[in-house]
Amino acid sequence: MKKINLYEENTFNDLHMKRFLVHDSPYFKILNFNFRAGQELPIHSHDIEGQLSLVVLEGTGEFLAKDGTLPAKAGDVLISDISEPHGVRAKSDMRVLVTIAPPI
Amino acid sequence: MKKINLYEENTFNDLHMKRFLVHDSPYFKILNFNFRAGQELPIHSHDIEGQLSLVVLEGTGEFLAKDGTLPAKAGDVLISDISEPHGVRAKSDMRVLVTIAPPI
Repeated sequence: MKKINLYEENTFNDLHMKRFLVHDSPYFKILNFNFRAGQELPIHSHDIEGQLSLVVLEGTGEFLAKDGTLPAKAGDVLISDISEPHGVRAKSDMRVLVTIAPPI
Repeated sequence: MKKINLYEENTFNDLHMKRFLVHDSPYFKILNFNFRAGQELPIHSHDIEGQLSLVVLEGTGEFLAKDGTLPAKAGDVLISDISEPHGVRAKSDMRVLVTIAPPI
């Protein structure tokens, strides 16, 4: 059992999205991405089995998908196959938690 | 790809913790538990392989563990083996997101 606080452990970076590895195990990988307004995780995909969740903890922006964008705000959970193109673009400062199972 | 908003989809219940199934797949199960102050998810465990994350989206309370309690607040992520006793007790109204991999 372990506990970490995302607000205390991860900061923002004015140059690029700030990535923080929360947990990695045979079962899942958990990452926290902090974005300044305008920063993004470019749309991408990996040709492997599995799914991921993107949880917006704070802020607003857009989920990037193959066919366009979806608005993203606090409390949103996006579920995607790992093999499906996905990304995030921040409109305000934004904290996003990503869980990947099985881990990449 | 699917998107849901936890704040819009799940409510609170004055009688007991409110449970909302966000997603279930062969890769992970995602649940949202909303607690009124004083409500709890009693400490429990399952004798199976895997891990779970408990993410506090809003509010304060305690994570329940075998050896006692850990304070819980917004931004906290608790990682536990599924076989390790775990639970939650809310001190204020509290929203918690649970991800279980592989799904129970």
